[in-house]
Amino acid sequence: MEIEKVNLRIDTSKSFEIIDITSEIQDLCKIKKGIVNIFTKHSTSAIAVNENEKGLLKDFESALEKLIPKDNGYLHDNIDNNAHSHLKSFLLSSSQTVPIIDYKLDLGTWQSIFFIELDGPRNSRSADLTFIGEK
Amino acid sequence: MEIEKVNLRIDTSKSFEIIDITSEIQDLCKIKKGIVNIFTKHSTSAIAVNENEKGLLKDFESALEKLIPKDNGYLHDNIDNNAHSHLKSFLLSSSQTVPIIDYKLDLGTWQSIFFIELDGPRNSRSADLTFIGEK
Amino acid sequence: MEIEKVNLRIDTSKSFEIIDITSEIQDLCKIKKGIVNIFTKHSTSAIAVNENEKGLLKDFESALEKLIPKDNGYLHDNIDNNAHSHLKSFLLSSSQTVPIIDYKLDLGTWQSIFFIELDGPRNSRSADLTFIGEK
Repeated sequence: MEIEKVNLRIDTSKSFEIIDITSEIQDLCKIKKGIVNIFTKHSTSAIAVNENEKGLLKDFESALEKLIPKDNGYLHDNIDNNAHSHLKSFLLSSSQTVPIIDYKLDLGTWQSIFFIELDGPRNSRSADLTFIGEK
Repeated sequence: MEIEKVNLRIDTSKSFEIIDITSEIQDLCKIKKGIVNIFTKHSTSAIAVNENEKGLLKDFESALEKLIPKDNGYLHDNIDNNAHSHLKSFLLSSSQTVPIIDYKLDLGTWQSIFFIELDGPRNSRSADLTFIGEK
Repeated sequence: MEIEKVNLRIDTSKSFEIIDITSEIQDLCKIKKGIVNIFTKHSTSAIAVNENEKGLLKDFESALEKLIPKDNGYLHDNIDNNAHSHLKSFLLSSSQTVPIIDYKLDLGTWQSIFFIELDGPRNSRSADLTFIGEK
């Protein structure tokens, strides 16, 4: 059993942006059989697994905005004007864990791994990858 | 430390269905002390941990439908008529990680592990189980 | 590779309460490089990672209450008057996995690990910590 850690740097260019990081994670995978945990180090972002279809990603942005509207008299907006970004991140998750088999992310046909920017644009967002398993 | 992978096949019979897979996972557990990651390979489904009470599961179906209504002019519905299923899956999670002690899933008294079908009925849904720990 | 399990006892004092358990988890960490999975054993609670800012935590309580209102004719309320607590827990997650490096939780500057009480007050809530990695 081995454990390997890699940091993945992500630059974002919009306030809300869904970035497919599947191939970057695949390229860094040196584990034959195990799991990888993908953890975002920012509380105004999230990690998710779903289908990479342009229309769907737009739908998700709209759905999230309806659930957690931007300007809504949030207390946190008195301190830092990004309460809605934190609240969306609270509803989603700071990490996802994905199985690995034969050095490949064992995803379904329609699954991609996404970094979700909720308070961009930002340089140097960072996701921690922890690979655990057999080489 | 050992790592074991098993694929759990799940057939669903309704468009929305919550299936308790706790005992199937328990039966496959050969790890004495560790964790199991339960990962669904479908982006219109989810894994969750909660109480298996019939009324509550109905309440959850209604609550999800209120948060993400079925026909809502989603862009993805022009491609594949299941945007709401993906969006519900985005809000939930593709996997859960559960502790194991003495060869038993270390769940609380009122906790079950659920496979949540959001776009059924489907044959051959599949959940990847990765057990990590000591034998 | 080592695996270590610790149980963290948490007492809560309100019906809804967000408790920062970061320093308790850090104090129990004897792993040099790896991950920790934090799992709540109660289906009316959740684990989350976000910023510990008083206003934001109030905002999150209000946002959750708007998404899943307390008294809403839920079926589960005929059995046990806490359907909304379970439904909020369903939307959040029973566990989070956090990376460890150099014996430290590898969190971002603004991240804390929270136990979220959704049906308190309760004595003896309990979170299972599973540390996996190299010593």
